[in-house]
Amino acid sequence: MMKRQSALFGVFTLIIGFAYGQKSGPTNPEATEVYEPIPPRVIPGKLGAPPSDAIVLFDGQHFDSWVSSVDSTKVKWHLNKDGSMTVKDKTGNIQTKQNFGNIQLHLEWKSPKEAQREGQNRANSGVFLQQRYEIQVLDNNENDTYVNGQVGSLYKQGVPLAMASSPTGEWNTYDIIYHAPEFSRGGNIVKPATVTLLHNGILIQDHFEIEGTIEYIGWPAYEAHGKAPLMLQDHNDNSRVSFRNIWVRELE
Amino acid sequence: MMKRQSALFGVFTLIIGFAYGQKSGPTNPEATEVYEPIPPRVIPGKLGAPPSDAIVLFDGQHFDSWVSSVDSTKVKWHLNKDGSMTVKDKTGNIQTKQNFGNIQLHLEWKSPKEAQREGQNRANSGVFLQQRYEIQVLDNNENDTYVNGQVGSLYKQGVPLAMASSPTGEWNTYDIIYHAPEFSRGGNIVKPATVTLLHNGILIQDHFEIEGTIEYIGWPAYEAHGKAPLMLQDHNDNSRVSFRNIWVRELE
Amino acid sequence: MMKRQSALFGVFTLIIGFAYGQKSGPTNPEATEVYEPIPPRVIPGKLGAPPSDAIVLFDGQHFDSWVSSVDSTKVKWHLNKDGSMTVKDKTGNIQTKQNFGNIQLHLEWKSPKEAQREGQNRANSGVFLQQRYEIQVLDNNENDTYVNGQVGSLYKQGVPLAMASSPTGEWNTYDIIYHAPEFSRGGNIVKPATVTLLHNGILIQDHFEIEGTIEYIGWPAYEAHGKAPLMLQDHNDNSRVSFRNIWVRELE
Amino acid sequence: MMKRQSALFGVFTLIIGFAYGQKSGPTNPEATEVYEPIPPRVIPGKLGAPPSDAIVLFDGQHFDSWVSSVDSTKVKWHLNKDGSMTVKDKTGNIQTKQNFGNIQLHLEWKSPKEAQREGQNRANSGVFLQQRYEIQVLDNNENDTYVNGQVGSLYKQGVPLAMASSPTGEWNTYDIIYHAPEFSRGGNIVKPATVTLLHNGILIQDHFEIEGTIEYIGWPAYEAHGKAPLMLQDHNDNSRVSFRNIWVRELE
Repeated sequence: MMKRQSALFGVFTLIIGFAYGQKSGPTNPEATEVYEPIPPRVIPGKLGAPPSDAIVLFDGQHFDSWVSSVDSTKVKWHLNKDGSMTVKDKTGNIQTKQNFGNIQLHLEWKSPKEAQREGQNRANSGVFLQQRYEIQVLDNNENDTYVNGQVGSLYKQGVPLAMASSPTGEWNTYDIIYHAPEFSRGGNIVKPATVTLLHNGILIQDHFEIEGTIEYIGWPAYEAHGKAPLMLQDHNDNSRVSFRNIWVRELE
Repeated sequence: MMKRQSALFGVFTLIIGFAYGQKSGPTNPEATEVYEPIPPRVIPGKLGAPPSDAIVLFDGQHFDSWVSSVDSTKVKWHLNKDGSMTVKDKTGNIQTKQNFGNIQLHLEWKSPKEAQREGQNRANSGVFLQQRYEIQVLDNNENDTYVNGQVGSLYKQGVPLAMASSPTGEWNTYDIIYHAPEFSRGGNIVKPATVTLLHNGILIQDHFEIEGTIEYIGWPAYEAHGKAPLMLQDHNDNSRVSFRNIWVRELE
Repeated sequence: MMKRQSALFGVFTLIIGFAYGQKSGPTNPEATEVYEPIPPRVIPGKLGAPPSDAIVLFDGQHFDSWVSSVDSTKVKWHLNKDGSMTVKDKTGNIQTKQNFGNIQLHLEWKSPKEAQREGQNRANSGVFLQQRYEIQVLDNNENDTYVNGQVGSLYKQGVPLAMASSPTGEWNTYDIIYHAPEFSRGGNIVKPATVTLLHNGILIQDHFEIEGTIEYIGWPAYEAHGKAPLMLQDHNDNSRVSFRNIWVRELE
Repeated sequence: MMKRQSALFGVFTLIIGFAYGQKSGPTNPEATEVYEPIPPRVIPGKLGAPPSDAIVLFDGQHFDSWVSSVDSTKVKWHLNKDGSMTVKDKTGNIQTKQNFGNIQLHLEWKSPKEAQREGQNRANSGVFLQQRYEIQVLDNNENDTYVNGQVGSLYKQGVPLAMASSPTGEWNTYDIIYHAPEFSRGGNIVKPATVTLLHNGILIQDHFEIEGTIEYIGWPAYEAHGKAPLMLQDHNDNSRVSFRNIWVRELE
């Protein structure tokens, strides 16, 4: 026990002791200035348009950056005249030819104007980061479902902080910051993936730690993987979700 | 050492052993559905306009949410007819009346059209999170400075990932996700503050861990604090930086 | 940038700001006294003898707490008159009937007086924590081998901080503090196992984080498991290592 | 949502995907053998005697490694003929001349045979790691006190896992593994100190994270410091605690 009396005896020593550890450091402002390396110059885009260093994955002209996830051949989804694409029922998911790790991702999506069906079957699609970790796309307007499966959820893992959708039939933006999981040389998860999501500019996933691959049945778990494609879902129920203006910036 | 031969002896046991620990879990999809609590509905704003749950700090009409940081009286900065405000030289910083912890923050700023002076003296201002942690505002267009003091830096701590400014004289957006530091009951830092910054939509601070209060001279360090105001800087060199459309959403 | 001049302007505010966060707390000594729960009383043993709350796994009288790892029948190793046991070649590993999680473990071992063979084949055995994570037993006296396989190593993972063996043929003590790994509900590693080892009273493993199951070939990796037996190795090369005085205390 | 049907569509892709990330590695045992650097050889001591690489702080012959904490002059405690020392009332704490960081520490202590007074005033002393972090020494035999102040506690912070004392008047051993706290360049705590304590061979502090300097009144907090002496306490109440056989091994 440290007693009042003995504490007094100790004061002299402690003052000496702390003196060794006291905060010290530079005494002029120049000492804490850093000059290198110089960050790259990036020209921003206007109103969601891709910045100068972005990889444009879809600009409405063609599907050149994509293949069918079913058979690796060309995409069978609809290419629309207004610069968007729409899921074609039962043709399967599509995915980028390029593999990605850590990314900033921008995309826009909308549900069909006429709402059809209920719950998970109304305008359901998904953005699969690295082909495995799904951010839900769904028309939740006057259409409830389980909250870990609602629009903007990390499907069956991460309930969004808010329901921030545009009205049915109008465009939504997803701005995503994603860091891939890291694995040990033996294949065990060492650092989980994280995702931050702004839905129409509103923060709804806040550096969320992903627990593993999306599982429709059962608990999520990780299996080691490297860089992998971005995948968009055909939910096989004629959901007819549309996408446009998809670009990524690779992060370190 | 685990030898080939003994490994064989061990196989039977290990199979039994692993059986106890094997992955198991729900076998139907309903078991992993979550229904409560239900996330709030937030109506998004168009083109950077505040969403329905935002606290609007400045909409161009008045300074009602702000006070002078010098003497806690009313703000002496310029209120412009175009819905913006401009720093009035040597009137001091201004800060919100309200204290904040974790926030999503949106604001827009621009430098004067005519560039004046060099380096840290060209359109310098700053956004001080919780009155202590400064995100740099500066006109860096054709105006180099130390990189940990350039536009979008966490001043003298966090070099931005890119230089993503609009041209001199045009509006910039800052979208910020900020988590306040956490302290032990004795006042020591337990969890550092973090900041994510999109400058004109481009990720330039990526969940950056702040090392302590901004120091012009010396190393950063934390001192315990609670919620605190948002502060904007008068750099006292007639920098005449303007701000508009400032809103926050409080995060948990 | 924070300038000298503006820093002066800011001083008043900052003092106010820090006042809210300044360290505060109890002002009398009684406020920080804790009275419950009361830790259990444990009577220490003399000279390595088991304390009053230990589970004695081997006291030299019998193998009642053990089975063969090969066929789960009774142990075929030698029970010696001096209160020790000795590995009987090619009868296989032995393991406790009881499963363990976090433990403090004490055991003693010795190599045969007459050194035989070289490297990994001189008095090789092993202590397998939870049947999977091996602490090496080896006669390293004037017998070099790879350092991540030497006496006291976490085999092929953790080089010991020192080589602290008794002379060949004399008893060694191992005092081990072991925490089992923790897994997610989906089976992924969440917290690695740790081991601290005092070899003859000398710290040679210092809260070492185990990377996964011991692998003779390849990288270590985790597979989910629950509580599991303590296992001792027959290295199948007539190594004739002896053990005695084995006890554990279960930790929370 | 991941549907049964779409999951089937996805199978082919996922198999391909996982193939990239599947566990791979060395296929021969030699690839995972490490040969350097070679750990030092340390000759163990018998029955608590110092190992060959220990710094002997007290062997019963003299106080050459110690000074008074009060005035930095020579120690006024009793040097006994049996190779021990005893606190001399009101002469103040004593401390090593040498400063230490991370250490393994062995010491032995006993209370006087005749118990005097109650609670915190019965044979109270303390082992102050780095002059600041106290492990309690107290005669708790049939003498209750607050549990975060009982024998083996990290005083007012860490309740021991057990009360493992020898009978009043008999020698106790403390075997301690201590890691010093780490501080940022600005002086904030970055990694707390940890302590593991075997009391008479029984684990009673298990990698405990210290919250800050010991406080008799108020909450613990850290202040930056470097290496510092080991200090033993004079509790100023004629507690007459004795010590012997004190040695340390410096850890990295």
